[in-house]
Amino acid sequence: MPHASSAMKTVRRYLPILEWGRSYDGQTFSSDLMAAMIVTIMLIPQSLAYALLAGLPAEMGLYASILPLVAYAIFGTSRALAVGPVAVVSLMTAAAVGAIAEAGTMGYATAAITLAFLSGLMLLALGLLRLGFLANFLSHPVIAGFITASGILIATSQLKHILGVPAHGEALPDLLISLLTHIGQTNPYTLAIGLAALAFLFWVRKGLKPLLLRTGLRPRMAELLARAGPVAAVAVSILLTWGLGLEAKGVAIVGAVPQGLPPFSLPSLDPGLLRELLVPALLISIIGFVESVSVARTLAAKRRQRIVPDQELIGLGASNVAAAFSGGYPVTGGFARSVVNFDAGAETPAAGAFTALGILIAALVLTPLLYFLPNAVLAATIIVAVLSLVDLSILKRAWSYSHVDFAAVAATILLTLVFGVEIGVSAGVALSVGLHLYKTSRPHVAEVGLVPGTQHFRNIRRHDVETHPSLLTIRIDESLYFANAAFLQDLVMDRVVCDQPIRHVVLMCSAVNEIDLSALETLEEINHRLGEMDIRLHLSEVKGPVMDRLKRSHFLDQLTGEVFLAQYDAFRRLTGPQGPARIDPVAAGA
Amino acid sequence: MPHASSAMKTVRRYLPILEWGRSYDGQTFSSDLMAAMIVTIMLIPQSLAYALLAGLPAEMGLYASILPLVAYAIFGTSRALAVGPVAVVSLMTAAAVGAIAEAGTMGYATAAITLAFLSGLMLLALGLLRLGFLANFLSHPVIAGFITASGILIATSQLKHILGVPAHGEALPDLLISLLTHIGQTNPYTLAIGLAALAFLFWVRKGLKPLLLRTGLRPRMAELLARAGPVAAVAVSILLTWGLGLEAKGVAIVGAVPQGLPPFSLPSLDPGLLRELLVPALLISIIGFVESVSVARTLAAKRRQRIVPDQELIGLGASNVAAAFSGGYPVTGGFARSVVNFDAGAETPAAGAFTALGILIAALVLTPLLYFLPNAVLAATIIVAVLSLVDLSILKRAWSYSHVDFAAVAATILLTLVFGVEIGVSAGVALSVGLHLYKTSRPHVAEVGLVPGTQHFRNIRRHDVETHPSLLTIRIDESLYFANAAFLQDLVMDRVVCDQPIRHVVLMCSAVNEIDLSALETLEEINHRLGEMDIRLHLSEVKGPVMDRLKRSHFLDQLTGEVFLAQYDAFRRLTGPQGPARIDPVAAGA
Repeated sequence: MPHASSAMKTVRRYLPILEWGRSYDGQTFSSDLMAAMIVTIMLIPQSLAYALLAGLPAEMGLYASILPLVAYAIFGTSRALAVGPVAVVSLMTAAAVGAIAEAGTMGYATAAITLAFLSGLMLLALGLLRLGFLANFLSHPVIAGFITASGILIATSQLKHILGVPAHGEALPDLLISLLTHIGQTNPYTLAIGLAALAFLFWVRKGLKPLLLRTGLRPRMAELLARAGPVAAVAVSILLTWGLGLEAKGVAIVGAVPQGLPPFSLPSLDPGLLRELLVPALLISIIGFVESVSVARTLAAKRRQRIVPDQELIGLGASNVAAAFSGGYPVTGGFARSVVNFDAGAETPAAGAFTALGILIAALVLTPLLYFLPNAVLAATIIVAVLSLVDLSILKRAWSYSHVDFAAVAATILLTLVFGVEIGVSAGVALSVGLHLYKTSRPHVAEVGLVPGTQHFRNIRRHDVETHPSLLTIRIDESLYFANAAFLQDLVMDRVVCDQPIRHVVLMCSAVNEIDLSALETLEEINHRLGEMDIRLHLSEVKGPVMDRLKRSHFLDQLTGEVFLAQYDAFRRLTGPQGPARIDPVAAGA
Repeated sequence: MPHASSAMKTVRRYLPILEWGRSYDGQTFSSDLMAAMIVTIMLIPQSLAYALLAGLPAEMGLYASILPLVAYAIFGTSRALAVGPVAVVSLMTAAAVGAIAEAGTMGYATAAITLAFLSGLMLLALGLLRLGFLANFLSHPVIAGFITASGILIATSQLKHILGVPAHGEALPDLLISLLTHIGQTNPYTLAIGLAALAFLFWVRKGLKPLLLRTGLRPRMAELLARAGPVAAVAVSILLTWGLGLEAKGVAIVGAVPQGLPPFSLPSLDPGLLRELLVPALLISIIGFVESVSVARTLAAKRRQRIVPDQELIGLGASNVAAAFSGGYPVTGGFARSVVNFDAGAETPAAGAFTALGILIAALVLTPLLYFLPNAVLAATIIVAVLSLVDLSILKRAWSYSHVDFAAVAATILLTLVFGVEIGVSAGVALSVGLHLYKTSRPHVAEVGLVPGTQHFRNIRRHDVETHPSLLTIRIDESLYFANAAFLQDLVMDRVVCDQPIRHVVLMCSAVNEIDLSALETLEEINHRLGEMDIRLHLSEVKGPVMDRLKRSHFLDQLTGEVFLAQYDAFRRLTGPQGPARIDPVAAGA
């Protein structure tokens, strides 16, 4: 039954769980469970903190770490990706939703849920239509610049919690002005807790692991204990705040976090809201996908496994839809968390489902304990986590490699800092695409001649080569398409207008991988104009697929000259021993 | 004084009139004057008609044909371009201004003047910044589709004047519904005049010239007389309308056209209006520039002259600014008009200035005679002129050449017809760029082997070639950049994960014209991952400029394999007679 088996293949493609689930055994189970426990410990403070960053109640961070993880376990292809709330997407959520509703209101939470829903639908649609390639339009410099600038923005936005002052603003200038305006109202207790937590967490990150190693602990255990540092900070700060009654002294705390299962929630279907969230949802989808797929790709390669980008879109889409229906907000695969999951031995996506179970238990049992957790400690967790995202060395690397790439990084960083995440990333994409088109619209073009004694042709400006006054040979080092067609036309026409003895123009197409319709029409125009000037146009070294396509047009019938397989043949024929081949006036279309 | 001469050179670049003005003589003067007279006769009815199309008073068409032409004569580089109101730009003006103000109001005219001003400033800025290449992002299929759809829209929009009914709408569905709703109110006198004018103008276009030739007239004279057809239609219809008192029978007429010099006008500086006109002004600027520069390029080539696209931007920018200050509206170089100017013997831009003088005389003297001119006759002039723009054969040509190009044309035509000019052309540009990126994001890649007995390498799927189980050679037929970097990575990793004996991967870069920073980082990642799998990465046939850039990064230090000048060297070395070269496990960065 080939029909049934092809249907089965389709089902398997969309449900990777059927593939890895079949060989699931006790050994894999215990590996996954171990990894899940460690990721859970890491995720509890992170999920609370990122919800705070997104301007949402802490419990929404927990909810976003339950059902979405189960959905990814069913539909995702990466064996190690740990899905949940992440810093950059939380910041983008705050920016998108903050433009629509006041933080802390019901409308704000509904907008965040709706954003997750829209983003989920978009990811699913992109996956089903196999449009994962769209994410490739974000160039590395733009992503690097965007992540760095987001890290700076996030860290700055959390300073208000460390100082215990109100402050707001989506971009750096607003944030700084707002912070400076309120700095006189700094709460000393909050500041003390915040700075202590920051110092402790930085030390945990840099100093704890070497210390543990010196006590004889195994490296892997030391690494994992160091990852649990934030949990220790959370526990100690809760005890201190409760014991010293710091709430009464103005230290902002998380407060009552509802205890229980994630609620059933529904996205809003208000057309106005949906329209306003459309662009932010698209940007969040793409940024989330790009971040997620790049860590998934890296981890898969380490074990000679593979991921399927289009199926990853479906996995992340399902996660976000699940988030929307269970009181969560936009999620994606987190970098640090996935690396921990991988290092802790996760072998299948089931580890994610077990993590979800761990967070569920936390939501059912631990939430009353979080009442006295100071916001300043969560802010410190975020700051320490995001400062690892800030990497200004990309500026130096880009500068030394290519000024065009440097322009893209610098502009993305600057625009993100000054105008916020949405304008920053949109401008970055536009700039990447624009600069790429600009580069290819002025392709490298060389006038070439014969290297004496060989059949090779080289740039006449770089090499001592043979040429002939009646023959102009131009090698184009780029595919010919709409953006560079006019450039070629101007170049050829300028050259023949200035140099009267030319009777033959050969376009050497060895590096031309494509000729689109615009370029074809331009070649027809060049052929026609040269014909009017009594000059023949020839092509040489045209690639197979390009030639196949040219044969489908009328260009080759109109061509005043010939198509030569090798440039050497063209040179020999057109500058034969009897001197420049005279041609009759060509009336080609004139 | 090198300083003074370089300053002089700059002045000359920006003022082409200094170049051609020096050799101006009596012979050139008489040629230019002759051409100007003929263009004037053609331009008078056109300028009135296009103002009507733009929803503006008829005299604004005349005003747009005076100072703008003088400005272009000073700053433009084309010797034959005839500037003034044109059909497509008039339609775009109507679409842009119609969204803001009611036709016939003072606000409407002010908005049109402001649009010319903004468009002029943009063109000037693009020219001074040398951004003329931006126009290249409009691919030929998109322009062809847009012009064709605009022609259909314009012709349809003029049917209301032929029928003598009110109708409005920016896109085809609205227009048709509006026409059908009012068709019962058709004025029989208007319809009779309109149909008669249409029939006469079509006959003039097709039948008059052969007739005149048969009477023994010289071909050039016959051609020019045929071009004066619309003037005859205008004159006869004025006499008939006046003589038969058709105004009283409901035939819409042009009415009182002010007599005199173009007025001094000022664009509005209202920030709200300027913001609303920003995008339309940009689209008008680009479409106008593209249309204009393509006809200028064609005509220049016919006489072995050249145009300077960036200076053309300045010429057109100056024209539009001049239009804004003299009661005009957006102008550009017209196709048919420029061809007539060229054929009539115009030798320098002075012909344009003489045409301006002709129109000025018309504005001073002829306007009272236009009172009884029926709008239906102007509409007929427009319909006959724009139907020559409609060329649906582009659909067939695009389909047979490339389905991607076909998609761009079809979508542009459809979107322009259904949603109007602004959405149509924006979507067309986005689609061209998107499809181009899509194509290059999945480049042609071939696994190659050695053609026995030669040093050539060919696709293993197309040719019978030698390969070696430990060696994978991939030839990439595209530059490596952000949009296709991930594609390459997935391809290489999938290939080596599935094929265990591979020990060497060679990327053959003979068609790689550029490697951007994203692609470089991807190559580093591939190198690193392959290293972890004990596989070496090599490059072969890297072009000079690409190699220069790679040397500026650390990639070559990290590369686990070598860079071979020729693919044959790589093949020989890596599959030497002693069998596959064993390599030591490579710790490269692992």
